[in-house]
Amino acid sequence: MNNRIYNFSAGPCTLPLEVLEEAQAELVDYKGAGMSLIEMSHRGKDFMDVYDETISLTRSIFNVPDDFSVLFLQGGATLQFSMVPMNLLNEGKRAAYVDSGHWARSAITDAESYGDVYVAWDGKDNNYSRMPKTDEIELKDNTTYLHITSNETIGGVRFHEWPEVEVPIVSDMSSDYMSRPIRWKNFGLVYGGVQKNLGPAGLAIVFIRDTLLRDINRNQGKYLRYDIHAEKNSMFNTPPVFPIYIVGKVLKWMSKIGGIHVIERVAEEKARLLYFAIDESNGYYQCPVQKDCRSIMNVVFRLPTPALENEFVKQASLEGLANLKGHRSVGGCRASIYNAMPRDGVETLAAFMDIFQANNPI
Amino acid sequence: MNNRIYNFSAGPCTLPLEVLEEAQAELVDYKGAGMSLIEMSHRGKDFMDVYDETISLTRSIFNVPDDFSVLFLQGGATLQFSMVPMNLLNEGKRAAYVDSGHWARSAITDAESYGDVYVAWDGKDNNYSRMPKTDEIELKDNTTYLHITSNETIGGVRFHEWPEVEVPIVSDMSSDYMSRPIRWKNFGLVYGGVQKNLGPAGLAIVFIRDTLLRDINRNQGKYLRYDIHAEKNSMFNTPPVFPIYIVGKVLKWMSKIGGIHVIERVAEEKARLLYFAIDESNGYYQCPVQKDCRSIMNVVFRLPTPALENEFVKQASLEGLANLKGHRSVGGCRASIYNAMPRDGVETLAAFMDIFQANNPI
Repeated sequence: MNNRIYNFSAGPCTLPLEVLEEAQAELVDYKGAGMSLIEMSHRGKDFMDVYDETISLTRSIFNVPDDFSVLFLQGGATLQFSMVPMNLLNEGKRAAYVDSGHWARSAITDAESYGDVYVAWDGKDNNYSRMPKTDEIELKDNTTYLHITSNETIGGVRFHEWPEVEVPIVSDMSSDYMSRPIRWKNFGLVYGGVQKNLGPAGLAIVFIRDTLLRDINRNQGKYLRYDIHAEKNSMFNTPPVFPIYIVGKVLKWMSKIGGIHVIERVAEEKARLLYFAIDESNGYYQCPVQKDCRSIMNVVFRLPTPALENEFVKQASLEGLANLKGHRSVGGCRASIYNAMPRDGVETLAAFMDIFQANNPI
Repeated sequence: MNNRIYNFSAGPCTLPLEVLEEAQAELVDYKGAGMSLIEMSHRGKDFMDVYDETISLTRSIFNVPDDFSVLFLQGGATLQFSMVPMNLLNEGKRAAYVDSGHWARSAITDAESYGDVYVAWDGKDNNYSRMPKTDEIELKDNTTYLHITSNETIGGVRFHEWPEVEVPIVSDMSSDYMSRPIRWKNFGLVYGGVQKNLGPAGLAIVFIRDTLLRDINRNQGKYLRYDIHAEKNSMFNTPPVFPIYIVGKVLKWMSKIGGIHVIERVAEEKARLLYFAIDESNGYYQCPVQKDCRSIMNVVFRLPTPALENEFVKQASLEGLANLKGHRSVGGCRASIYNAMPRDGVETLAAFMDIFQANNPI
């Protein structure tokens, strides 16, 4: 395919071309079965092979400890905003949340319906331009978990270092899922939609420490219970077959290029190229995020005026650099450079930024 | 594709070949966009066109009245087992359920976590071999809705006539979704997973009468609230892009072959062929369902012995007639003949049944 463009969408977003080509070849007749994989019973051998392999790759690439269950659920991270407190926030306990921006606040609002929730660090005071250090997070007695958002997709701010706290961390990792290794001992539950780093929309992956399953609230419908999904290996009901299949292929691609450490190094390099272009622009481009908290997935930046920002997005698009508009709630520009964004795309964008600045002086 | 087999799987299941072929052609580069549809922002023009057209086709083919909202959700019918009572079963009210078999009982069990629920008709007394007539359904005071399962996928029993009751009917229609017109005035909410008649796994479609949205329980997480999804046209969070896209193509195919009335007539004819083969077999094949309640989607039948049933499934499979084994909870055989199963497939199966009987006398 020779007209493929660089797609900087915040999600759903670019996937490895070879994954798409493989899926295309297999779509009508899956490996000679006489039918498509999406027509097959989810309990049949062909899909079970895909399913088991995808779970197994998830575990191995992300170095998931044996005492965590891997759940493949629907409803995105959004449903997890409810399921986390519905399952874990028992009577007499409370839950701490770091308010780091848009997605953290969404998680907080939903949790408030289910129990005693408080903000343990509030990013509003510095306009969500950074994440807290451990000693800034104020935990109260009887806190059952600390919820963080590892990377804010809209604000472009991320936890560079994981908090070291006494309670299990629960983290929404949607927008930097499996882009870097994590220190599992700090975590009790990790969740995220796959539609940024790992595949198409329609699948959320949840990792939960088995000890947390013991005290789960069982007085609720079965789809909403982590223990049911863990017991049934996420086959309690029909799973979203196609996203799981594509995630399996993306994981194989990740494994082939070298695994999570290579993925992280490449992501850091790609981000560095763009932040360099920003920081060396003599203030033409500006990133509102404190340097040690800048996202390596979502690079947000402003131009001198909104008119220039519009022009930038428009001209970039004509050059095959698509979807650079910032989120409507904050404006500006944003380049989402997830795992599958080739380094070439980022280099092309950095070069375009220089040219645009030269052609459009203040 | 010349080795395509007839797939009688109960779901996920067979889809129209032309839908698969179109999707294959478009998978890597969607209409010259330089990327796949599954890589695109769900708020971009290309996907919004697909989305709006799919909703519009859903409305027109199923004759959905204007005072119903159409919601595209995740979590399958299984999550709806919780969401229905979470949203509709307010304090001081109760909900009536028809217990017609496996799926009805799943809905009942989940609802019991959320309020006062009772069984208004119990199919256990006749071994789930039929559905109730309206005058057999016993509604109590303060009943807010009557829940039915229009077609039991495992039992092969369906409502031939809709109950006429004073309260709105809520129906799980997963396994006969959009296979026949429904009398909307009787219904308040209709839901179902699409992975039988309409597309791949990972999408549930919910129709809800707008008057029911008014008194919805708002003290819960946003993903679980029908009113939020209705307000946001199901774009509150990232929708499952690929299943929606495929459902759109299946709906276009349905429209092309003549719409819901043709679909219903063809379904009835296909079912008649199999029930004829059963009823004319002098008792070799037996269907446990009362004649006027037999499903036109899931034809269940027994052979004289379990050994013969195994042999039947095995030999059929060698003839390209796949997935005829009954659900593990009831045994026997089951032919699921959803909308996309060609009449040829059913005729081939009926002919095979005759031959198998002749070759394997009791």
